[in-house]
Amino acid sequence: MSQAYAARRARLRDQCAAAGGEAALVSRSANVRYLCGGGVPPGAVLLLGPVQDVLVAPLTPLWEPLPGGSYHPEDLRILVLPGEGGDPAGAAADLAAADGAESLAVEEHHLTVARHRALAAAAPRLRLVDLGRAVEQLRLVKDDEEISCLRIAAELADQALGELLESILVGRTERHLALELERRLVDHGADGPAFPTVVATGPNSGRAGHTPTDRRVEEGDFLTIGLGADYRGYRCEVGRTFVIGPSPATWQVELYDAVFAAQRAGREALVPGAACRDVDRATRQVLDSAGFGEGLGPRMGHGVGLEIDEDPRLAPSAMGKLDACVPVTVEPGVHLPGRGGVRIDDTLVVRPEADGGPELLTITTKELLAL
Amino acid sequence: MSQAYAARRARLRDQCAAAGGEAALVSRSANVRYLCGGGVPPGAVLLLGPVQDVLVAPLTPLWEPLPGGSYHPEDLRILVLPGEGGDPAGAAADLAAADGAESLAVEEHHLTVARHRALAAAAPRLRLVDLGRAVEQLRLVKDDEEISCLRIAAELADQALGELLESILVGRTERHLALELERRLVDHGADGPAFPTVVATGPNSGRAGHTPTDRRVEEGDFLTIGLGADYRGYRCEVGRTFVIGPSPATWQVELYDAVFAAQRAGREALVPGAACRDVDRATRQVLDSAGFGEGLGPRMGHGVGLEIDEDPRLAPSAMGKLDACVPVTVEPGVHLPGRGGVRIDDTLVVRPEADGGPELLTITTKELLAL
Repeated sequence: MSQAYAARRARLRDQCAAAGGEAALVSRSANVRYLCGGGVPPGAVLLLGPVQDVLVAPLTPLWEPLPGGSYHPEDLRILVLPGEGGDPAGAAADLAAADGAESLAVEEHHLTVARHRALAAAAPRLRLVDLGRAVEQLRLVKDDEEISCLRIAAELADQALGELLESILVGRTERHLALELERRLVDHGADGPAFPTVVATGPNSGRAGHTPTDRRVEEGDFLTIGLGADYRGYRCEVGRTFVIGPSPATWQVELYDAVFAAQRAGREALVPGAACRDVDRATRQVLDSAGFGEGLGPRMGHGVGLEIDEDPRLAPSAMGKLDACVPVTVEPGVHLPGRGGVRIDDTLVVRPEADGGPELLTITTKELLAL
Repeated sequence: MSQAYAARRARLRDQCAAAGGEAALVSRSANVRYLCGGGVPPGAVLLLGPVQDVLVAPLTPLWEPLPGGSYHPEDLRILVLPGEGGDPAGAAADLAAADGAESLAVEEHHLTVARHRALAAAAPRLRLVDLGRAVEQLRLVKDDEEISCLRIAAELADQALGELLESILVGRTERHLALELERRLVDHGADGPAFPTVVATGPNSGRAGHTPTDRRVEEGDFLTIGLGADYRGYRCEVGRTFVIGPSPATWQVELYDAVFAAQRAGREALVPGAACRDVDRATRQVLDSAGFGEGLGPRMGHGVGLEIDEDPRLAPSAMGKLDACVPVTVEPGVHLPGRGGVRIDDTLVVRPEADGGPELLTITTKELLAL
């Protein structure tokens, strides 16, 4: 696996060289992890230098350097700053300049103005240029190893959700159900939840990102659950809505059917080459026609990977097209104020039709279950 | 309480005016929360404008604006951006310029280079200056309301820890104990853990920020626990080390005594007017003299509040002095590679001697308990 990281760094270096860059400094933590692997200390930055690649790490109370302070696994040197308070980015710029670089590409969408200024002061002869979202671009299309991590993460989330549905729900609070889901995720081998678990009952149901409250599950409620697992840094998402009690009301069935149809339309629009905005539109249109177009969220899905919310965005203003091997969520939701709502959310990997079309990672049923 | 927020904004505005600033843009989320209260949508920024204060919020899938899109609780106007993808900072700069400001102070230690550039482009006639850490400075000294939130947070953490100690520990994994602590925190009314709970057994014990593993508690282990509660946004910290089994080994007692003495020295150094670095030194010196000086962490404590790790730092290079009503941690720890170690961590509020000296918020015993 460590060869994969070296290959990713080589790809980034080639891109930089093609753009005339001599050295690059990666500071955004998910990007550093992508290029160096897990276990990187918090706050570390990666220098792709003219002579050597160096991971520069701050000395923090949350990480203990290996004895000796630095080591060299393969071609990646690791340098731990000796004292507290130094910015590893400054030390990395220093190194780049010492190795003969005249310019350094930095992540201007991540570095703060103050850090950027300190960097310029630390190596005054370096010309700082913008690396842009080059690493995020590399991260878009996932390799087999990454997709299998996502597959496992999805399996863990499905498992935790499935077990919860077998237990008694009426009378339990949103907060307790959320905690139980997170415990089950970890029990089954997740490194943690991918994001704060959503449990939304009754009038809260269908709300995106709802923070669990002390409201208890009642007969007749819609119950919306959204959760995801983090497995080796890779994060997936699954969301379902259930109805509590023997049989759903008519409005509940109608609303559920509309969201289900919209979500299916979104999933079916996931083909390599499709414009991201068209996936959003395909999903949104179904809800519009069903009379639920008002108050829809600003987008119908997003990429997942080392972050739970990464490129691409599936939104009306999104640019770009989908490629094969890009994992995304499709997650329309409708919330009717005072009554509740429905949200259905899957993680899928875009695949060519010849390979069977989009690969559904989260396989929990999307039938409207009455629990 | 909403008056308190208005008063904080007025104080910041006075400071800006004294420094010649006409308008300020606060973008760091803990700072926005400090000035506006809880419930602020993620990504919102606060404009202290020449005419009005406006909270500008992005439209995100994680937050649903109130019907109508904006409302005016007292003197704070709330503006929700209509579409996805816009930067509220740009909209705020626009507003400031429209209200006649010629300069705008921004948080250069928080804004990225890319956002800063977009801001400059959004309001080209505004001169952007640096607000610096003005809000962080205001946040240093806590008011009664803030301290009582911290007191409750500490009580919740003590409670969760106390209950865990009454249960059977041998044979359980670090991960399970950590999850149980977090569940207990929430059960008792915490909004969540203040930071990822640390449970470190045997050779892992004493390590700062240790991520819980599947290692099980064994007879003879040191067991280090570090946890904290988030109560209404305020975060505290407590850390203790126990020994598992009927009686600790000699090396365990010696190491415990040394860390205990160091931690006491740090607590006793907490007086208004003390230099932050002197608190660090008082703590560190005890461990140095006891022969445990090597491999100590870079600092012996830090401030807590809306963030679990905020100013001041209690470190050798720290500038500044302690004031009354500043809550800090004192948390020396020693880790002996291969054997384990001890960490003892309290949250205290600096108080004048006439008021009884430092107020200990985390009251779990610091005797070496054999469990």
